[in-house]
Amino acid sequence: MTLLSLLDYASVFVFALSGALVASRAQLDIFGFIFIASLTAVGGGTLRDIILNRDTVFWVANPGYIGLAALAAFLTFFTAHLLESRYRAILWLDACALAVAVPAGVAVALAMGQPPAIVIIMGIVTGCFGGLMRDVVCNEVPLVLRQGELYVTCALAGASVTLLVLYTGLPMSVALLGCAAT
Amino acid sequence: MTLLSLLDYASVFVFALSGALVASRAQLDIFGFIFIASLTAVGGGTLRDIILNRDTVFWVANPGYIGLAALAAFLTFFTAHLLESRYRAILWLDACALAVAVPAGVAVALAMGQPPAIVIIMGIVTGCFGGLMRDVVCNEVPLVLRQGELYVTCALAGASVTLLVLYTGLPMSVALLGCAAT
Amino acid sequence: MTLLSLLDYASVFVFALSGALVASRAQLDIFGFIFIASLTAVGGGTLRDIILNRDTVFWVANPGYIGLAALAAFLTFFTAHLLESRYRAILWLDACALAVAVPAGVAVALAMGQPPAIVIIMGIVTGCFGGLMRDVVCNEVPLVLRQGELYVTCALAGASVTLLVLYTGLPMSVALLGCAAT
Repeated sequence: MTLLSLLDYASVFVFALSGALVASRAQLDIFGFIFIASLTAVGGGTLRDIILNRDTVFWVANPGYIGLAALAAFLTFFTAHLLESRYRAILWLDACALAVAVPAGVAVALAMGQPPAIVIIMGIVTGCFGGLMRDVVCNEVPLVLRQGELYVTCALAGASVTLLVLYTGLPMSVALLGCAAT
Repeated sequence: MTLLSLLDYASVFVFALSGALVASRAQLDIFGFIFIASLTAVGGGTLRDIILNRDTVFWVANPGYIGLAALAAFLTFFTAHLLESRYRAILWLDACALAVAVPAGVAVALAMGQPPAIVIIMGIVTGCFGGLMRDVVCNEVPLVLRQGELYVTCALAGASVTLLVLYTGLPMSVALLGCAAT
Repeated sequence: MTLLSLLDYASVFVFALSGALVASRAQLDIFGFIFIASLTAVGGGTLRDIILNRDTVFWVANPGYIGLAALAAFLTFFTAHLLESRYRAILWLDACALAVAVPAGVAVALAMGQPPAIVIIMGIVTGCFGGLMRDVVCNEVPLVLRQGELYVTCALAGASVTLLVLYTGLPMSVALLGCAAT
């Protein structure tokens, strides 16, 4: 359970950073940053919890996740202008977040005793839908489609590997995505 | 319970009016009006009920809400052309709807015994996501982002005040938003 | 139960074909095809199941639906270029899918003992939201709004007829939509 929530925290934080960078590109104010960061951060996991009909959505059980997303939004708000290329950073962050969110989704579905096909799909849902919601709300063509092959391949690979060697998939998918995003 | 459902009805009606006005700007037909009006009217509350895992979504328990939204769409369909500026009216209606929807969301979350942080977030979700869905479906940049500071500040203020002096927050947030939207 | 799942399979397959054609127009790769096809195929039914608070979302209970959507995406990926007009085909497929999805939605809501108003709304939700999500994610103005009158009228007619003469509505709505889409 502790590794699972660590994964959840890490993916929330990294997704929130990427959401805040998108907010920065769209020149929103601090509340727009927090809104988009939170949406990106918990969107995928919320959808996963709702589809699996979990008793409580993960961030309702522990509102600290939203606080963490708001913190990431704050940090980004005051440092985003220092970045050379925000678009490049978004790609990188999305890849990293995917790499942690997919195993988190897989772990939740596994813990609920779902069959392998559903476990893998939930990994993909957790990994992809946060960024998808962010792009849809900001009225951009979703990154997950523009970089489709890369994204879904990585998510699929990550989910499958995680399923095989429970949790060992994490470093491998980080490597996979890290190199792919460059 | 009666004040709670009155708040719900009021926010459904006002959000439906704003949804119908957006449909009018997009030159949709009467069914488009009803569709967008209903989506805007019940979108935020539906999301709230789903995330909180309420037994029944509020308008499934009482389909009269959808009838009310359809009524608002009808009224708007035949009167929208009389308005001088539909955009200005949308801003106004959104502000009013926010002012009633936020306390409604707060009240539901409170009745379910959620902690304060979740109560405030649910107020914001109920208030913001109806209009957000409307703008996403109509392929516009969401008003909540273009007017971010205003919106979220008001929603946050409304939710916090409501939480403190249960229900007293309503007139105050109406005043806040009314003046801000001008 | 068997006719119900046949309807579900048929609507999943036809919606997946239409989703894949939209992916083809957006020049996505094979993973984009599968992603959009699956989203279109199960989007409406998933929303229906979540709003009605069904114990398990239909494709979580039976992941074969996702497999079917992926199959449709594959078939489309290798044959879409043979079509003279993909836009015309999308209109046709959407009409057909609507004609099977609406009764499927109606049947599920009926089986859950919902009142008539909710049954009809669920028919419309199941029929319209798959295509709506597809268009929103692909950043297009939703077809359901551009062709609003046609769509919603057909969905409403289909749902009402299905409700009256349980299941007899299917061929009639096919006829209705078939002729309308031409």
